[in-house]
Amino acid sequence: MNAEYLLSSEYAKKLYHQYAAHLPIIDYHNHLSVADIVADRKFENITQLWIRVDPYKHRAMRILGIPEKYITGDASDYEKFEKWYGCLPRLAGNALFDWSVMEFDKVLGMDLYPFKKSAAQVWGEANEKLKELSAKKILEKFDIEYCAPCASLVEDLSLFDRSKGICPSLRGDDIVGVNLSFVKKLEQLTGMTIKSLESFEEAIWKRLEDFAEVGCKYSDHALDDGFGYALDDGRNDKRFQAVLRGEALSEEDKLCLTSGILKTLAGFYAKIGFTMQLHIGAKRGTSTRLRELTGPTGGYAAIGNCVNVKALTDILDDIEKQEYGLPKILLFTLNPADNAVMSILSGSYSKDGVEAVVSQGPAWWWCDHYQGMMEMLDHLSVFGVMSTFVGMTTDSRSLLSFVRHDYFRRVLCQWMGEKVQKGVLPDNFDILSDIVKRMCYTNALKTIKGGNLNAFQ
Amino acid sequence: MNAEYLLSSEYAKKLYHQYAAHLPIIDYHNHLSVADIVADRKFENITQLWIRVDPYKHRAMRILGIPEKYITGDASDYEKFEKWYGCLPRLAGNALFDWSVMEFDKVLGMDLYPFKKSAAQVWGEANEKLKELSAKKILEKFDIEYCAPCASLVEDLSLFDRSKGICPSLRGDDIVGVNLSFVKKLEQLTGMTIKSLESFEEAIWKRLEDFAEVGCKYSDHALDDGFGYALDDGRNDKRFQAVLRGEALSEEDKLCLTSGILKTLAGFYAKIGFTMQLHIGAKRGTSTRLRELTGPTGGYAAIGNCVNVKALTDILDDIEKQEYGLPKILLFTLNPADNAVMSILSGSYSKDGVEAVVSQGPAWWWCDHYQGMMEMLDHLSVFGVMSTFVGMTTDSRSLLSFVRHDYFRRVLCQWMGEKVQKGVLPDNFDILSDIVKRMCYTNALKTIKGGNLNAFQ
Amino acid sequence: MNAEYLLSSEYAKKLYHQYAAHLPIIDYHNHLSVADIVADRKFENITQLWIRVDPYKHRAMRILGIPEKYITGDASDYEKFEKWYGCLPRLAGNALFDWSVMEFDKVLGMDLYPFKKSAAQVWGEANEKLKELSAKKILEKFDIEYCAPCASLVEDLSLFDRSKGICPSLRGDDIVGVNLSFVKKLEQLTGMTIKSLESFEEAIWKRLEDFAEVGCKYSDHALDDGFGYALDDGRNDKRFQAVLRGEALSEEDKLCLTSGILKTLAGFYAKIGFTMQLHIGAKRGTSTRLRELTGPTGGYAAIGNCVNVKALTDILDDIEKQEYGLPKILLFTLNPADNAVMSILSGSYSKDGVEAVVSQGPAWWWCDHYQGMMEMLDHLSVFGVMSTFVGMTTDSRSLLSFVRHDYFRRVLCQWMGEKVQKGVLPDNFDILSDIVKRMCYTNALKTIKGGNLNAFQ
Repeated sequence: MNAEYLLSSEYAKKLYHQYAAHLPIIDYHNHLSVADIVADRKFENITQLWIRVDPYKHRAMRILGIPEKYITGDASDYEKFEKWYGCLPRLAGNALFDWSVMEFDKVLGMDLYPFKKSAAQVWGEANEKLKELSAKKILEKFDIEYCAPCASLVEDLSLFDRSKGICPSLRGDDIVGVNLSFVKKLEQLTGMTIKSLESFEEAIWKRLEDFAEVGCKYSDHALDDGFGYALDDGRNDKRFQAVLRGEALSEEDKLCLTSGILKTLAGFYAKIGFTMQLHIGAKRGTSTRLRELTGPTGGYAAIGNCVNVKALTDILDDIEKQEYGLPKILLFTLNPADNAVMSILSGSYSKDGVEAVVSQGPAWWWCDHYQGMMEMLDHLSVFGVMSTFVGMTTDSRSLLSFVRHDYFRRVLCQWMGEKVQKGVLPDNFDILSDIVKRMCYTNALKTIKGGNLNAFQ
Repeated sequence: MNAEYLLSSEYAKKLYHQYAAHLPIIDYHNHLSVADIVADRKFENITQLWIRVDPYKHRAMRILGIPEKYITGDASDYEKFEKWYGCLPRLAGNALFDWSVMEFDKVLGMDLYPFKKSAAQVWGEANEKLKELSAKKILEKFDIEYCAPCASLVEDLSLFDRSKGICPSLRGDDIVGVNLSFVKKLEQLTGMTIKSLESFEEAIWKRLEDFAEVGCKYSDHALDDGFGYALDDGRNDKRFQAVLRGEALSEEDKLCLTSGILKTLAGFYAKIGFTMQLHIGAKRGTSTRLRELTGPTGGYAAIGNCVNVKALTDILDDIEKQEYGLPKILLFTLNPADNAVMSILSGSYSKDGVEAVVSQGPAWWWCDHYQGMMEMLDHLSVFGVMSTFVGMTTDSRSLLSFVRHDYFRRVLCQWMGEKVQKGVLPDNFDILSDIVKRMCYTNALKTIKGGNLNAFQ
Repeated sequence: MNAEYLLSSEYAKKLYHQYAAHLPIIDYHNHLSVADIVADRKFENITQLWIRVDPYKHRAMRILGIPEKYITGDASDYEKFEKWYGCLPRLAGNALFDWSVMEFDKVLGMDLYPFKKSAAQVWGEANEKLKELSAKKILEKFDIEYCAPCASLVEDLSLFDRSKGICPSLRGDDIVGVNLSFVKKLEQLTGMTIKSLESFEEAIWKRLEDFAEVGCKYSDHALDDGFGYALDDGRNDKRFQAVLRGEALSEEDKLCLTSGILKTLAGFYAKIGFTMQLHIGAKRGTSTRLRELTGPTGGYAAIGNCVNVKALTDILDDIEKQEYGLPKILLFTLNPADNAVMSILSGSYSKDGVEAVVSQGPAWWWCDHYQGMMEMLDHLSVFGVMSTFVGMTTDSRSLLSFVRHDYFRRVLCQWMGEKVQKGVLPDNFDILSDIVKRMCYTNALKTIKGGNLNAFQ
């Protein structure tokens, strides 16, 4: 891979090479397997490492008409590799084209592009290189200071290792969508008896302290396409009792109860010093057929409608009214048409001494590519203040995806170079290099260092 | 017109001149008059050919305050020409400026720009040239392999001529919005008796076979601003009986019935091998005054709200569940804020062996211009896979609009050239020329050649 | 400040320096204090002039975590200045960075950038310069032909001075949202007795004539996030009677009554020749805490959801149906995802002899910056006709904001230069300089000169 990849101006090159390239990585939210890391898993072949856990690649193969057999079906690992490798020249323009090349370059030291070698040859060479590698060795190829695979509140935390920077990122959806089996697990883990919403919340808090203990600093909640928010009517304990009796709630009751729990959790995050990620706007229900074939995370999710601004601002306002005010909140939008709506909100809430207590997160999921990042930067800079940006995270299931931090840094420097050329950013290296460092590293560092928000400054 | 029009990089020029420029045209959906083509109509004057059937031009004249008399009113053809010609320098930045120049250049061999000649002079010269021209001679100026004016299911098909590539594109809106008079016409044409939804569907199928016989490969359905979709409740035959009795349906019943018919039709298209176009998001009801003055297609339609993603994904999912699965489906959005929503869906549905069974169509109607095409390409490439793009179509009422294929090809090559310069596309002529050919010609060719989807590969 | 600021092509420089730079300013809608202007207010210190009345700056300080004490609290003016000045290097990429530099340059003749001087030094120098300045002297630094601070229908008009071009822009929200106290004030001012909706409308008309008398040519109405429109059901007088009795209306009744008054007002504007601004899509209710701290215009408003196209087109259609048809209407959107929806509407309504009777206004409020302007121009040019653009206005509370006219002109010329380079605009100085003059000055001039719309041509 070319060292100047994506860097077409002198300004971009200078910013990247002098400042961005060598900063450590803080990856505050991903879906890596902690078990794989702790066990220092070795990979049998390149399909296992490169393709199997990457639903983005599965999705692109489907678009190219590759039969499902070769994607998630019973074809051999070699056949799957061969099909995927054959797709690459057809993918020019899509980030998978670039990431695939970067992944091979960074981790295997192999140059895939321009895909002239036969599939069999690449398969052989890559598998040979793989023999020297393992989960930990792959991580070592990136300068990772903090890596946060997500974990449910009721998951075993013993595998995490704060001293090595392998800490959990709390996945909060099953707390909010509480059911009886979740409550039972929580009782077991905490040794507490949960008989009311109040005791449920006490157990949650106890567990949050456990998470904090092992270095957790982030939580996340999915607000999928069509989400709503209901103001508290004082009847949530009743609804929780119904959950304890294993009863199904009406849609309306469910909305009230989940709204209440979400608000309470946000208050807890403010108290304990967790940053709260809101992942907004996924449309997960598309093809029933693909869901049945490939499970809920099979790469076929779509982009939902624009956010309900009233619901979102109601949530934020309600959270702010509580004792500890707002935790640091990152808004992620899957629909790029909402970039302005999201980025403007950093000026609609504030907390003395805290930068951008509400702010837009990095380009997320289907938007995590050159154009998505450029658009996010475009909006963040004019509707918000880009120097408060909290940084990139991969949100990925693949150990190879850390190349996207490098990708982001290149895009950021390229974006700045273009803006300087047009006169929209000042031709001032001191000012811009300071901002680059904040956006690539130090802002994220603040979120994982502070015991609570007051420690930010 | 400059041969390098819109091509500012060497890369763009090379791609365009070596690959794109000389490919034949497949125009799979337009609103041309087949009668005019068959009769080889001659045009009395340039207003009849250039302005009369082009609501885009009418619209621009209204924006410039030209009295309606000179647009659709009783002014003479010369007066109308004079007014329109006078508007051109004011239209810089709008595609009509460029298309007008291209239309005169390609068809009349006249250089309009920079509009220094008097209206009277251009009128005289153009009318002189027109004497040599006719509908067929105009078509011959473009290398058209397949041209599909749309036709209703109950229209006479005898004018179409498969051997000459003049085939119908099925306009399906009156099927879905069925009423008694439509049923009667369908009975006459098919000789069938329609007494139930089932027999209605049988008659439709019979007619679809007639369409297939004359080379039809495309259908289209308008999902206008605010469309919904209702799941089948098993009571549609009852509703259809009410239609047969000439009764008006409630809004709710109408939604259920139209949803059911749309789903059935999609299944038929999958079986017979038609590509199904969904034209999404027009807001046709704006000025009552203009509707009364100029009819339903008078150029005053607007852009509706973003699509209801749930309704759209429900339709697609319901279609996929039927026996033949999904037909090839093209999603056209009138609201460019929905480009991401549309383009991501190509990864949400799949069919073994079929490329992009659901995919975004070209920039449509008010979005059919430089910027609209650029944005569509931007989104298609990063949220989908651009090499699966099914190609441009004019969707126009004017014989002159075929210049827009050239316009599209220039924009595509220019877009690629810009991306290569920024490093976002590989500097690889083999890869990119292959993609250009697919996007301008071969992908569309597959859709009109295959007897059904299985023939795609 | 560099004379070529934002102008990176020769074309842009030529257009700007030869045409745009020296045109007079028509600022048809702002929030300046007429009292300050008439009293020729002097400013004690730079904080009073530069920061105090600028909620944009307050907002940016909050995003950077500055405690509210230093924004709207009881810190000293020097402390507030110091904090704001310290924020500037962090704001690169945000328009406040550029405007701040331009404001100091144009009004104080001081070069702030690159912020190397100490806060104390700048404070001293700026306050020294301020001694020579006053409200009128500041205005004189800009070549302002027409300046329209907004005023409520029941405000005292005696301070306005048509001969000096200081005319009111009618702020219509309290008319539409009528309550008893408003009616009482209107009775006092007009000497009329208001006992019915009809007499209310008579009083409004009388007052509109007063506004016209002092040179008013513009009105504005806020259609905030979630606005609706109800067709007339003939019961609005009844609802108005309830208002007269001081009763609270239900949400539904309120919607009907406000819809009816809005429609009537639009008819009045058409008759009297006012341009009607619709400011669409603000989400004003966000943080209750900030509202309590800083009042309703404290800079924390957000961007609402995309407009309800049906409601908007219903309003416009209903207005058109009245005796005088449509007034000139400017649509402002706060959500940039609606740019296409707004700009297309100029082709959906028309009035013989009037250019763009409905048209998109300049990039507004949070969108009033380089990117927002560029996007607005992108959309206006391809979905509408940019040469009909009615021109920039500041909509600001600050006397310094007139620099934004220069900013707009630079952006426009830069945008044109870029388009010429890409071949999207013709390389034709005659055509483009004509358009620049219209967009920066003459189109706005027409709106303030005509006694009514018929005078436009």
